[in-house]
Amino acid sequence: MSDFFIAVDLGGTNLRIAAVNEQGKLMEKISLSAKVARDPRSVIADMCGAITRLQEKYRGTSSLHGIGVGMPGVYDQRTGRIHEAPNLPGWDKYPVKAEIETQLGTQVTLENDGNVAALGEKWLGAARGLDDMAILTLGTGVGGGLVFGGRIWRGVWGAAGELGHIPVEPEGVPCGCGNRGCLEQYASATAVVRMAREAIAAGRAPELARVGASDAEFGAKAVYELAMQGNPEAGEIFQTVGRALGIALGMFVNILNLPMYVVGGGLAGAWDAFAPTMFKELRYRALAFAAVAQPEEEAGAIGRGQTVVTRAQLGSDAGLYGAAYLAMMTRAG
Amino acid sequence: MSDFFIAVDLGGTNLRIAAVNEQGKLMEKISLSAKVARDPRSVIADMCGAITRLQEKYRGTSSLHGIGVGMPGVYDQRTGRIHEAPNLPGWDKYPVKAEIETQLGTQVTLENDGNVAALGEKWLGAARGLDDMAILTLGTGVGGGLVFGGRIWRGVWGAAGELGHIPVEPEGVPCGCGNRGCLEQYASATAVVRMAREAIAAGRAPELARVGASDAEFGAKAVYELAMQGNPEAGEIFQTVGRALGIALGMFVNILNLPMYVVGGGLAGAWDAFAPTMFKELRYRALAFAAVAQPEEEAGAIGRGQTVVTRAQLGSDAGLYGAAYLAMMTRAG
Repeated sequence: MSDFFIAVDLGGTNLRIAAVNEQGKLMEKISLSAKVARDPRSVIADMCGAITRLQEKYRGTSSLHGIGVGMPGVYDQRTGRIHEAPNLPGWDKYPVKAEIETQLGTQVTLENDGNVAALGEKWLGAARGLDDMAILTLGTGVGGGLVFGGRIWRGVWGAAGELGHIPVEPEGVPCGCGNRGCLEQYASATAVVRMAREAIAAGRAPELARVGASDAEFGAKAVYELAMQGNPEAGEIFQTVGRALGIALGMFVNILNLPMYVVGGGLAGAWDAFAPTMFKELRYRALAFAAVAQPEEEAGAIGRGQTVVTRAQLGSDAGLYGAAYLAMMTRAG
Repeated sequence: MSDFFIAVDLGGTNLRIAAVNEQGKLMEKISLSAKVARDPRSVIADMCGAITRLQEKYRGTSSLHGIGVGMPGVYDQRTGRIHEAPNLPGWDKYPVKAEIETQLGTQVTLENDGNVAALGEKWLGAARGLDDMAILTLGTGVGGGLVFGGRIWRGVWGAAGELGHIPVEPEGVPCGCGNRGCLEQYASATAVVRMAREAIAAGRAPELARVGASDAEFGAKAVYELAMQGNPEAGEIFQTVGRALGIALGMFVNILNLPMYVVGGGLAGAWDAFAPTMFKELRYRALAFAAVAQPEEEAGAIGRGQTVVTRAQLGSDAGLYGAAYLAMMTRAG
């Protein structure tokens, strides 16, 4: 009988639950709406229902060895509650671990979603085999995760790796966190849409305005497609994204000197539109790129010596693989 | 017979060698000029001469258990050479470890000076008893050091903790490292003097001009004294210092979530002039200060929950104590 784990990826919009085996094979995935307008207890009821279905379906052939859950916000391991999760209104300080364990009748391991994505890319993605790495996740917001010596670096109460909340423009756009000019305000899908709407409102982006008017769900993907078609205003928005990422990544390189920095999350799909500007900024802002003589540039990655900045490989499943790995690590102790 | 260690603090201007015992008592200190105009070999000869003198003087009553050396630049543990040390011209890629060991005939442990200062404050200073902490050292340049889990975090090749080279003003003052707007350009003693000279040259700082003209060695201390006497132009310079530190520290808090961040180095002596602005910036830029409800402000320190930003306690001896601790850790393995 093979071992398997149940992985949960709870986001502001989607709730996904998967069965993943020890070898990293995704056996089955259930996608639900996170229905954030509802209270946490009923979202958790949906989650636990799906977990139980997977558990029962595979119990004849495989043996469940743990349940891992990734979610936004600062997750405090000591209290089992989340803080600072603006994308999950109503969940602030909710006893999420206790509620899941009560409904399931078994223990679960919870973790911030950026940390979980880092574990996923470390286990099966771009950072396979590396013990030290960081991930930046570009989604509705910007998150991140740090792995030092093979383990998540959580900091004192789980607030480490809040990489979306470093200022890349000290007097720039105000952020929900209270700071100004945070990376999240320039390099998230939300920021791309905001910048597009600003360009439309200023009357300086006729193509964006046309697409925006005809597309009820005007989002970052539409802006990306215009950019790739050569539309200058859309292109400029992704240059802003790339510049912000280059400033932030240069900082991480100078502070942490890790061998690899992975860029993931939904907006990483727009890699071709922002990566050239990102690498241009990074080249002069990161000491590590200046310090080592030999450049080794490859398609989609830049590395000099042992510093590599590259795109995530697991796409939107990084969080599920990472949550499974989290459960596996918990079992190993 | 008690155990002792020899500690070396090599800077761009001064070379100091001390005997420090296991209890952290500084038994004797020798101060020499680093005479950077001379070649590394002769500076190392001075260093080794002083080490030998201390060794012989105490060998009757104490037993030498190791020699630790702190120096500026990126020290590569694999090659025993330093890189990126603009304050030590002629030392770039010099085989410093091999030269010291050849001249002394015994093994030594070398480390970047920011890392060594971190160890000093962790052993006997502001971060006594903490296993996780960071230091920012404000001197001729701005350096830093990170301690995670009781050990220095060096990164892949020793370039971690280059906290002076993070941009606090992305399109600001060009830095020698190739980046723009680095912290070092706003929060070092060199930066204070540059800002003072700029204000004098612009004709908007008559008091600074008067002091500058009468003081052949016009430095950051003179600007600090004017600021403390209420001179507005000098005060403004230290507000710039404080703002830059607040932005940088907010970033470190959000990235690392450490329990303590220590501000040291010679310019930390101007604490009263820059700390109010630093704390003002920090309050709104650091998630940790917003996340935890109870403020605990004390004289000279700010803490909320478990995040404390405070002044170094060991002054200019942090590097010596840290180098001794480094030797002690090396012995312990």
